[in-house]
Amino acid sequence: MRIVIVGGGFAGINLAKGLAGDKNFDVTLVDKNNYNFFPPLIYQVATAFLEPSSISYPFRKLFRKNENIHFRLGEVLSVRTEDNVVVLNNGELEYDRLVFATGAESNYFGMENVRKNAIPMKTLNDAIEMRNKLLQRMEKAAICKNSRERRKYLNIVVAGGGPTGVEVSGMFAEMRNGILRKEYPELSTSVSNIYLVDGGDALLAPMSKKSQKDTYEALEKLGVIIKLNTRVVDFKDDTVYFHNGETIQSKNLIWAAGVSAKTFDGIPETSYGRGKRFSVDGYNKVANTTNIYALGDTSIMEGVDSAFMGGHPQLAQVAIQQGTLLAKNLKRELKNEALKTFKYNDKGSMAIIGKNKAVADLPKPEMHFKGFIAWIMWLFIHVMSLIGYRNRIITAYNWMIAYLSKDQSLRMIIRPDKSRKKGEVNPD
Amino acid sequence: MRIVIVGGGFAGINLAKGLAGDKNFDVTLVDKNNYNFFPPLIYQVATAFLEPSSISYPFRKLFRKNENIHFRLGEVLSVRTEDNVVVLNNGELEYDRLVFATGAESNYFGMENVRKNAIPMKTLNDAIEMRNKLLQRMEKAAICKNSRERRKYLNIVVAGGGPTGVEVSGMFAEMRNGILRKEYPELSTSVSNIYLVDGGDALLAPMSKKSQKDTYEALEKLGVIIKLNTRVVDFKDDTVYFHNGETIQSKNLIWAAGVSAKTFDGIPETSYGRGKRFSVDGYNKVANTTNIYALGDTSIMEGVDSAFMGGHPQLAQVAIQQGTLLAKNLKRELKNEALKTFKYNDKGSMAIIGKNKAVADLPKPEMHFKGFIAWIMWLFIHVMSLIGYRNRIITAYNWMIAYLSKDQSLRMIIRPDKSRKKGEVNPD
Repeated sequence: MRIVIVGGGFAGINLAKGLAGDKNFDVTLVDKNNYNFFPPLIYQVATAFLEPSSISYPFRKLFRKNENIHFRLGEVLSVRTEDNVVVLNNGELEYDRLVFATGAESNYFGMENVRKNAIPMKTLNDAIEMRNKLLQRMEKAAICKNSRERRKYLNIVVAGGGPTGVEVSGMFAEMRNGILRKEYPELSTSVSNIYLVDGGDALLAPMSKKSQKDTYEALEKLGVIIKLNTRVVDFKDDTVYFHNGETIQSKNLIWAAGVSAKTFDGIPETSYGRGKRFSVDGYNKVANTTNIYALGDTSIMEGVDSAFMGGHPQLAQVAIQQGTLLAKNLKRELKNEALKTFKYNDKGSMAIIGKNKAVADLPKPEMHFKGFIAWIMWLFIHVMSLIGYRNRIITAYNWMIAYLSKDQSLRMIIRPDKSRKKGEVNPD
Repeated sequence: MRIVIVGGGFAGINLAKGLAGDKNFDVTLVDKNNYNFFPPLIYQVATAFLEPSSISYPFRKLFRKNENIHFRLGEVLSVRTEDNVVVLNNGELEYDRLVFATGAESNYFGMENVRKNAIPMKTLNDAIEMRNKLLQRMEKAAICKNSRERRKYLNIVVAGGGPTGVEVSGMFAEMRNGILRKEYPELSTSVSNIYLVDGGDALLAPMSKKSQKDTYEALEKLGVIIKLNTRVVDFKDDTVYFHNGETIQSKNLIWAAGVSAKTFDGIPETSYGRGKRFSVDGYNKVANTTNIYALGDTSIMEGVDSAFMGGHPQLAQVAIQQGTLLAKNLKRELKNEALKTFKYNDKGSMAIIGKNKAVADLPKPEMHFKGFIAWIMWLFIHVMSLIGYRNRIITAYNWMIAYLSKDQSLRMIIRPDKSRKKGEVNPD
């Protein structure tokens, strides 16, 4: 049976792993990158605490011992469901079962200026772009004579009070209090503010009230200015505009405020549900299709799982469990065994705030942790989840050094040298 | 005394270090990157054995404890010698002494097609570009049905038989024999050749005959096809053209065949010597100037040093020793002490061939090493030269892993995501 998996994130990887070594399945994993990466840590790459390679791993290496798993670098353009063919930007693939595990992408809610000028936080490339841009702007601030202008380079507005927004703004606050003062003597007297804004009335909305309160207090203590019930409506002329008429002067808007699913040509409109996510049944089969599946963030399973009748949260654990279950169900199908419907096993959630504080909620038994103990839990769980022995060691080592020295050493502005061929100087 | 140093390579860094902490000097280091990097190892970044951060270090961090050393991100456009002002792309700086430590850049000898299409090997950005391009081309080869076309993606031509060319072609040969076969089953029956071409009649021209012979034999054993007395004259339509009429079909031409110095507006023509390098006296002062100096690769000191009357080789050791000496001479000048002329202390030279072979020539006593023992010497000297404790550990660790596993794990195609804003797919 030919399986084409589109997307090598948590869901896609776990499905492929589940089918690895079973000769009944000929699996092709399609991804636009040649590597899997670990999204919970991209904010650490963005703030120069971790190398991209510490949180990513090449697909070909991951599956090199599995002859029935093939990798294909490419992007899906459309699907010809009548022929069972998926059309890529560089060829076509036939399938017996097609699985979308394409995740979610940044949603700018139609705000064109935000899309063009804000810095997103979804992919590893986003993280590297952010690292480079912020470092370049600090250098520009260092030679800027006008204090009003200088503040625009230094102020940072983070939109979105979910884990990414909380983690990245906490990290910025730590950096401002440490590195900025040590290494930029030109800026020692400058004011720079870090804002965290969210349209809702709490940070980390899906977590417990206790975690929300601890997070709010910890970020305020670090000097982050938190604005709740505040929505971004525009971003132009170095100014972030909010729905209530307020503005903040800044060149740096970090966008972690929303995600949307990706739609594909050739899939019937009726297959999509809320938020353009693929509407799936209890086996993750897409509505109004016979052999197409969708997993994780890009799917929505309504009316199946008793505790989550409105659909599951878009979390790594859901994607992992759905990928694993689909592998088992595909095997059961071949053996004519009864399939199992999906039931989410909530293992809890956590977020890190700054260098050595975190919050964690566990569901069974219901418990809440905060501070250093939650940070150690976070560290342990995240390092253990990283693919590959090498990545784990390097990551643990980097964290240990960063923790001991309150410092990060990866602040190189590195990018392909576009200037060489065009004769330009120092592009931004 | 205001010192402006242009370029933070071996020469510039060593001059700045020599002046660090001396209140008589107010030093500004100007560089177009915000980091120092270690050129002898960029071929390891290019072949995905080392992370960029393992061989680079931010200037601001390097000098953060030295109040008299300032960093300025920028590029020199011209010099107004009459006003003692250097004009940057983002401002101006006044100086009492101006020091050029600008190194050398790739020289394409006027071949426009080579400049546009070949992959250079001088900067860290070059190395990352090479890593990304070659990985993308391997993926393209993997889906290419036409065996003739496929070979164009896989053949690699390395131009230049100096240390960089030798090291990079040896590394490619190791990769072909290892990773390519393991991770690209699609290519297992494909032929891919690695060519090393040089216009002269020996590899590693400045080294001993013994080292040249050992290198030649070791590379041949790895399967590298060596063509001496062969000059590239053009590179177009996926074909490398040579002066003798031969051609090789390939998309991949790595350019390590020559360097040239950079000239600056405002410096009199009469200040430049052979190869447009700044003509300097025994104190590295530029001819026909009163307060401008040049160090390392970008300078040529003729008729001074008895063993090197025609000028010194363009090597790291020369740059380091000239930077160190100039710092001392500037201090002597302030104290009205006699200055010392430069005398190069040759510590020997070495090159690595593949994973665990190297050649080394020592001058005093004259000795030649090869094989594993030379490799260990090479490793020790290079790791010890890396700036920063962290870099040393990570580098040593990566090498150990690569050596034990004959593998490299950094094969991620990572680049700023240009496609996001333009709606393009998978640009190459």
